[in-house]
Order: sequence, then structure tokens, then C-alpha cells
Amino acid sequence: MWSIEDIEMMSRAIKLAREGVYTTRPNPCVGCVITKDGQLIGEGFHIKAGGPHAEVHALAMANIDADLGAKGGTAYVTLEPCSHYGRTPPCAEALIKNQVARVVVAVEDPNPQVSGRGIAMLREAGIQVDVGLLKDEAKQINPGFMKRMETGLPWVTVKLASSLDGKTALSNGVSKWITGPDARRDVQRLRARHCALVTGVETVLADNPSLNVRHSELGYVADKLSVTELHQPLRVVLDSRARLTTNLMLFSIESPILLVSCVDYPDGEKAKWPAYVSHITLSADETGRVSLSELFKYLGKCCNSVLIEAGATLAGSVIAQGHGDELVLYQAMKILGSSGRNLITLPDYDVMSAVPIIKLIDERKIGADTRLILDIRS
Amino acid sequence: MWSIEDIEMMSRAIKLAREGVYTTRPNPCVGCVITKDGQLIGEGFHIKAGGPHAEVHALAMANIDADLGAKGGTAYVTLEPCSHYGRTPPCAEALIKNQVARVVVAVEDPNPQVSGRGIAMLREAGIQVDVGLLKDEAKQINPGFMKRMETGLPWVTVKLASSLDGKTALSNGVSKWITGPDARRDVQRLRARHCALVTGVETVLADNPSLNVRHSELGYVADKLSVTELHQPLRVVLDSRARLTTNLMLFSIESPILLVSCVDYPDGEKAKWPAYVSHITLSADETGRVSLSELFKYLGKCCNSVLIEAGATLAGSVIAQGHGDELVLYQAMKILGSSGRNLITLPDYDVMSAVPIIKLIDERKIGADTRLILDIRS
Repeated sequence: MWSIEDIEMMSRAIKLAREGVYTTRPNPCVGCVITKDGQLIGEGFHIKAGGPHAEVHALAMANIDADLGAKGGTAYVTLEPCSHYGRTPPCAEALIKNQVARVVVAVEDPNPQVSGRGIAMLREAGIQVDVGLLKDEAKQINPGFMKRMETGLPWVTVKLASSLDGKTALSNGVSKWITGPDARRDVQRLRARHCALVTGVETVLADNPSLNVRHSELGYVADKLSVTELHQPLRVVLDSRARLTTNLMLFSIESPILLVSCVDYPDGEKAKWPAYVSHITLSADETGRVSLSELFKYLGKCCNSVLIEAGATLAGSVIAQGHGDELVLYQAMKILGSSGRNLITLPDYDVMSAVPIIKLIDERKIGADTRLILDIRS
Repeated sequence: MWSIEDIEMMSRAIKLAREGVYTTRPNPCVGCVITKDGQLIGEGFHIKAGGPHAEVHALAMANIDADLGAKGGTAYVTLEPCSHYGRTPPCAEALIKNQVARVVVAVEDPNPQVSGRGIAMLREAGIQVDVGLLKDEAKQINPGFMKRMETGLPWVTVKLASSLDGKTALSNGVSKWITGPDARRDVQRLRARHCALVTGVETVLADNPSLNVRHSELGYVADKLSVTELHQPLRVVLDSRARLTTNLMLFSIESPILLVSCVDYPDGEKAKWPAYVSHITLSADETGRVSLSELFKYLGKCCNSVLIEAGATLAGSVIAQGHGDELVLYQAMKILGSSGRNLITLPDYDVMSAVPIIKLIDERKIGADTRLILDIRS
């Protein structure tokens, strides 16, 4: 069904789509390649929400040279072209207007309410539409968007860092630095790709972190992403008993904060909150902590993806309760010994078959450390 | 100084030498390649102690064809040819008799009492001798032999296996199986390469292991190593308070056992020991356990290499006291959680600079698990 040219062109469209990984949210990353007579004549990707879609960029490039033009050509798109008027006109309409002969779609729109409409619109206009080329690869560009559209819940990445023997700090709490500068830069990029960053009050009180993305620490990404293009993730702190006070570092950085508690904060404290702080109360679970089910349901309204950067208890609860999709584990080539602090708190299992099922997706060196990406969807 | 041919031929000799890794001990692995007029005419490696040395094999092959013959050729040897009559005549003499024109030696004999004599004997006979080609690579074939000849102490490998969060078992002791069958076969090969295997009484009492190498579990090595060629490592159990009894599995396998205690065993118990059990008493350290310094000094008399397969306490003491050379860590893609059992007991450090310095040498997948080889010589 698919020619070598089809596969090559869709691969290129997927590669292009990934260029938007730091900037398109809450929109998905989409890439588009247009060919005519076996020649690539246009390509583009979605850069940011509100800006032109990938198809529009690719059509514009194809139409620069009037002799060529998209008419009669083939468009490869990583995601079904949209069929509705949003902030931009529908891409299906643009492809029809430009009289392309064929559209190859990697994956249909995951939103069940709109899925298939763009494809139907194209077919009604007499365009040949082939669907499903490199479908899995195309889905993997937008795990968060895909999951949220299908379930209403965000993609949940748990980030952890430890020594080879699973310790995050010495017994006295000393943890600077277990991992090296390359891993820390990689974490900045991980933060920059997520819509929200969730941590617990204990981590905030213990480390007083700012929890923002520092442009200067993005490494190679800093070169292609200006400070203004950089999205700061929503900083979410789980503070069940409403203990946080505005003298913490977190509050001094002008960027959205969401405080999540189970009881209300004192009025005097709320009066001190800067404008970028918002607050919700959610139910407590049986341990008195914020209900994670409610949390992720709430975050699913606005966030495609959530990064958990928390201590052993919160990270463990996310995994043990089955909310996690992906674990990113940085391992330093160190051993700290059994008196060090443990990486992750899980129930006291009594059979090996009860432990979480995890699957290695990727393993590579990040400077002197190793980064493992593990699938923890059980 | 070295030609491309020199490097190629010595690389081949090193590769050949490694063929003996399971069988030559207590002798080192040695490889030899003989060339004449740019052509390889003979090659060989040392197979087992008491059998012909690498040079003898290579000369025999070179002399099969009388037209060629080693006369006027170049011999590449990974270790300085021996100069003394042992179980076989000196190799330096054989090379002289065969009138080779040049000998290239990777590394000198590490034993300071014989080092240089083989080379001197060759030079006195008018043969050109060049020393030092691929020296580091040649040393790495025989880390144990090299270390023992230089220091009187064996090479100490610590083998550990854990989950990604550094746990060896659930809190109730369940640990079968954290790592998979490929990793377990790899451990069998690791055992087969070591002269001795050291464990602690607690491990023996808890797991009742046989601690032997099972030929059927050697994987790809089983095909090139017959059951009779397989060396069983000396099984050493540290049993400071002389608690072991002969009803344990360990004693039912006919293969040498060394019991090391700080007090003597009851006569009634000793009377039950099979002939392959020997016993020494060593001093206790300040914790009442067998002195590791004395242990390794003792084992250095007969063993090039020692594999530590023990619990968190003994493995930790070996590393913390600086006796370890190499850590082989098998990591299963599992997380067991903080209630699981810790991998390694080390002192309760209060600064990060105090933790053991380790350096990654090799990292690879062994089935579904990852094997890390780490340099722990501090």
C-alpha cells in the first residue's frame, strides 16, 4: 500500500513535527510535506498555537514557485487536517483549494468528536486520502495530546534521579550533586516540554526550588528557542494542609502557580499572593493527601502533559496508583549505601508479581549519567 | 614505531589470548601470532596450565609447511616469553631455536623477579625485541594475574544484582527472580572466569546455594568448553563464628570449599567434612567478622581473581575498605520500592565527596536486564 517515497516523506513530516515540541502546546506538534512528480516542493510544521498550521506553511512553500505549486501533488500530514474554523481557517479547506490530488494522513484526530471529519471533507472534494502510514510513530510525537483527547487525562511523566543503588541523598539530606550538569540540563528540557510540573509541599519546604525553566540551562535547545518563545510550565504544588507561605522562592518568579490543597488557606496568606497564583481545593485521600485522581482530572482540562518532580512518597503514589505513563530516571554512576535516602516509596509488596510492570523504552548516556525512559502504563 | 601490520597482528594475538579465559588459570591468558614476509604463518594461545604455551602452538603451526617456517619471521606475543623451565621448556628458547628475526611483546612479565629475563635472553641471541605494543589492552586480558604478580593480592570483582531502585528483594526476602535467565547465565560465566567465589555465612544459611558453575547454564560458552575443561572456582565461605553445618547444599557438591572462620569448628563437625573441604582461621575485625585484609592476602597465594557474591554487608565492606577492583552490577527493569532490601551497606557518609569513586567501564543489555561494569579501584 505504501511506497518507499510515501514512507520517506512521512518520516520527514514526523521529523519536522518534532521541531514544535517546545512551543505548540496546548496544540499538538504536526508536520507536513508536499510532493509533486516525486519531488519535495513544500514542507512545514506547526510552530505555535494561534499561528499557521503545518499544512499552511507547506502550501505556502509549494506555491512560491508558480510552475510547481501544490496542484496535483501529494500532501503528507502527521495528523488529520482540521475541518473547523478555530483561530485559523480549516486546513482541509486549504488543501482542497490548492487542488492537491492525494493526502496521506499518519493518524486520525484523537478527539472522538472531530475524528474523521477532515478526512471526510477531503474525500467529498474528490481527493484521495490514505490513512495510517507510520501511525504509531506519529502518535508518539504527541503522547500528551493523544491521551488527553482520548481520556480527558494528561500524560504523566515521573522524573527521578538517583545513585546506582537507588538513593537520592545521604542520610543527612545532602544531594548536591548526584547527577551531573548534562543531566540537569536535560531535566530543564524535560520541564520545557511539559505543560505542568507537579511537586509536593515537602519538596518545596526542604529545597525551596523555583521550579521554572531556565533558558540559560537548556543546552542545545537554547540556540533555537528564544527566551520569549519558551513556555514556562504551570507550577503545581500539592499542599494538602495549606502550609505554603509567599516568602518561598517559588513565589518570586513571575509565572503561573497552582496551589492545590484540601483545606482553604488563611485569608491573610491569600491576600499576599501575586496575580499569577491560583488555588483550588480537592478532596483528601485516605492518607490525608490531595486526591491524585481528582488532581489529574482537573489538570486534564488544560494540560496535555504533567511532569512529576517530587519526593519518594508523591512519586511512589503516582506510580502505585497507576496514574503514571512514563518514568524518566537519571542514574548517577555512584553508590551511596543503604543509609542513604530511598528513591521511591511503594506499598510493601509480598510477591514479585505485585510490583509495578515497567518496560524500557530508551537508555542513553547523558554526560556521565545514564537516562532511562520507562513505560509505566500498567 | 609500530606499523599497521604490527597493530593488526598484536590485536589478533590479544583476541586469541582471550580464548583461554576460562581454562588457563592460574596461568595467564597468552596469545601468539607469527608472520613472515607480511603473511600470517602461525598462531596459537595458551589453553591450560601444564599444556603448551601460546608460542609453542604458533611455532608448530608455522613449521607445518617447511618452505615457510618461523625462521626470519616475526612473533607477536601478548606477554613476555618465559625464560625458565617450568612444566614446559622456556618459550624464549623455542623462539631462539626457531631463529625468528623479531619478537614484539605487548607487556613484560609482571612478576618483578622474572620480568625482563625472557626479553634479555632473546636479545642476547641477536633477536630484535620491541616491547609495549597495545600494552594496556594486553594487561586487561589478565587483570587478576597482573595484580597478583605485582601486589600478591587477587583481583576482586564484586557482583551485585538489583532493581532500578537498588533493591535486592522484597521486605519478606522474596527475590526470585529479579534478573532474568540471560543475566543468570552471565553470572555463571562470571563465576567460571574467577579462581574463587567468596560469600558470607548469612547468604549460605538464607539461600542454601550450591555456589558451583553449572555447565548447562553457561549459554554460548557451553558449546566451546566441555564439562571436564570447566574449572570450578574455589568456594570460600566467611563464617566467623563457625556456624556452618555439612547438611547444607554447598557440601553436597564435590568441588573444593574453603571455610574461613575466626574461631575453630567443633571437632564433631570437622569429622563430617568431605575431603574437598579445607579450613583456615583468620583474625576478626572490630565488628567480629573475618578480617578482609587477611582474607585477600591469604587468597592471593593461590587465586588470581576472586568473585564476591554476597549480601549487602559483606559486599559493602569489601568496597568501603577499598579491597574491590571491579563491580559488576546487573540491573533489572523493575522498581521494588523503599520497603525492599537494600543493595549495599556502606558507612553513613555525611558529605558527597566521601562516597566511593566509581567509573563506568562497560554498560550493555543482557537479555531484559542491564549489566554495568564499574571500576571501583579508588
